[in-house]
Amino acid sequence: MTIGVVGAGQLGRMLALAGYPLGLDFLFLDKEARTPAAQLAPSLTGEFTDARLLAQLAERSEVITFDWENVSVAALEKLRGARIAPPLAALATAQDRLEEKRLFEKLGIATTRCAAADSLEDLHDAARSIGLPGMLKTRRMGYDGKGQVAIRTAGQLEAAWQQLQGAPLLYEELVPFDYEVSVIGARSTRGQIAIYPLNRNQHVDGILRLTRAPWREPRLQAAAARALRKVLQHFEYAGVLTIEFFVRRGRLIANEMAPRVHNSGHWTIEGAVTSQFENHLRAILGWPLGDTRALGHSAMLNLIGVMPDRHALLGVPGLFLHDYGKSPRPGRKLGHCTVVETTALARDKRAAKLAKVIESRKIRS
Amino acid sequence: MTIGVVGAGQLGRMLALAGYPLGLDFLFLDKEARTPAAQLAPSLTGEFTDARLLAQLAERSEVITFDWENVSVAALEKLRGARIAPPLAALATAQDRLEEKRLFEKLGIATTRCAAADSLEDLHDAARSIGLPGMLKTRRMGYDGKGQVAIRTAGQLEAAWQQLQGAPLLYEELVPFDYEVSVIGARSTRGQIAIYPLNRNQHVDGILRLTRAPWREPRLQAAAARALRKVLQHFEYAGVLTIEFFVRRGRLIANEMAPRVHNSGHWTIEGAVTSQFENHLRAILGWPLGDTRALGHSAMLNLIGVMPDRHALLGVPGLFLHDYGKSPRPGRKLGHCTVVETTALARDKRAAKLAKVIESRKIRS
Repeated sequence: MTIGVVGAGQLGRMLALAGYPLGLDFLFLDKEARTPAAQLAPSLTGEFTDARLLAQLAERSEVITFDWENVSVAALEKLRGARIAPPLAALATAQDRLEEKRLFEKLGIATTRCAAADSLEDLHDAARSIGLPGMLKTRRMGYDGKGQVAIRTAGQLEAAWQQLQGAPLLYEELVPFDYEVSVIGARSTRGQIAIYPLNRNQHVDGILRLTRAPWREPRLQAAAARALRKVLQHFEYAGVLTIEFFVRRGRLIANEMAPRVHNSGHWTIEGAVTSQFENHLRAILGWPLGDTRALGHSAMLNLIGVMPDRHALLGVPGLFLHDYGKSPRPGRKLGHCTVVETTALARDKRAAKLAKVIESRKIRS
Repeated sequence: MTIGVVGAGQLGRMLALAGYPLGLDFLFLDKEARTPAAQLAPSLTGEFTDARLLAQLAERSEVITFDWENVSVAALEKLRGARIAPPLAALATAQDRLEEKRLFEKLGIATTRCAAADSLEDLHDAARSIGLPGMLKTRRMGYDGKGQVAIRTAGQLEAAWQQLQGAPLLYEELVPFDYEVSVIGARSTRGQIAIYPLNRNQHVDGILRLTRAPWREPRLQAAAARALRKVLQHFEYAGVLTIEFFVRRGRLIANEMAPRVHNSGHWTIEGAVTSQFENHLRAILGWPLGDTRALGHSAMLNLIGVMPDRHALLGVPGLFLHDYGKSPRPGRKLGHCTVVETTALARDKRAAKLAKVIESRKIRS
């Protein structure tokens, strides 16, 4: 049984690594021929909108999924008869920050205030009604902090507009949050739902650096699970879904959703009974979902830009390395590593120490 | 960095699954084109003795290893300049049951008494001096109980001889053992050694059915580790090595060794900090070895002949499935599954229950 995957990055690669032991085959589609997933599965090379390649992917696959949320909804919609999961409606919503916020509001999930900014005049109006400081963001194609400008004063509105104009934009309140968390869960085609413990995430320059999980705040966990469940049920979702939240004064404010496996869930490979990757596959195939329980206290650190020395990393007791097979480039996610400890305190100490090892042992590879 | 692997069965497949996260590439060589490993890595198709293909494998690989102990030592010896691990001397010894026993004796490792049986007369002599009952075995190419005949009475000697003659044979005492265990460990090219907790193994019709680990018998664990260490050091070994023992009245009697990752070590994928597959790769590359500590109490059950119903299997909480992607055939190892419990008692209960699920839910796939 073959799973077709649009996008062949590290998420696709880890999907395949989780799926082979289940007896699944994989076929990827990506713009590039040399991708993290193509190293270990057959791959079609061409545009994500190439109707002929998409038809071929559908023909050869039991179900089509995606490892990136910016794939073309319009192109996938044209695939008549193909099973696609997660649902395209969820993908379309996640692709538009404004639609996403409107959905959160509709479902009663607290989120940031925002307004479309289709003109400089709109932007001024939005800043007046929502207040400053705020963020001007592209509505579409944003990830890892790309397509965003922070605005502190009214005087900065025009420069921000000049920088991003051309794409549909929105203005959003800047929430002075205490920290960030995310919740990840799966819903199967048969309606079964399984939700992982909460992740606490730290970003640097808009890129995730560190996730610690489980982040034990029972009230937040319950609130996050409630929100996730609402979105899963709204879409009659199939697969893994992630929602990222700001935490402010002990309350959750939904920031964005990702209709896929998520960087903040990589700890589940070693730190939970069943990984997010395996549960995504079980969910889209209608198989029983696996146990989402944590096996200890995990810290996941991204390896960004250059790979640390492999000997140094593998010499760290109990460190799990995940190298995505990518060539180094500033700001690029090349891999991640995870440690699992028996207490949250031990986990936090190791995460701090490990961050130093990663910083100090960088080599050009 | 590419690892060349001679043989592309499930052991090679699981080596690749463990090696991709370390940033490694794989290239396999196998007689068959459709193999468990070829599903997820490039593969050369041809005889294991094909000098041209072996040269190509060596050319494209940092180091050559093997996933089957019956590959041709002579063919690999001709590969000048290629790094091969484990060492061919260990492979050659493991390929000949008599050499193997002689090595155990030389290293002071208790083993079964045996003698070469190059003629029917030799066989009668051996049975007289070693005693009855005994086993007539081929010296080479035996696995999963193949190439063996049990002999109870002197009257059965000639029929056994007729059945196996043509290949070099040996006669061996039949040890009335209490149970079977195996020990698995790795030695790296830099001399580091790491040894896993003991496995208790149950065979049916010569094929491994169930492994439970750790099998906590501190005296046996220490004796097994001592024996393994002797063999690792004797060969200045690199990679994972396994020794299988009979246990009789609390003492170990070495039965055979395998210069490779081993079916009785599959539980280490989920049940130990670092799997035997990852440690084999670390060892042959001279990287620091990973922690061999058990994470709980594991039971590994082989899936033989036909695959059980996938829904039924995946519906078992905390069950880890490993499907090798092979077509069903009586007696064929198609996959395995592992459960990890917090106590040995819970593990044993689950293993018994799981064996029933596997038996009852067989479907033709």
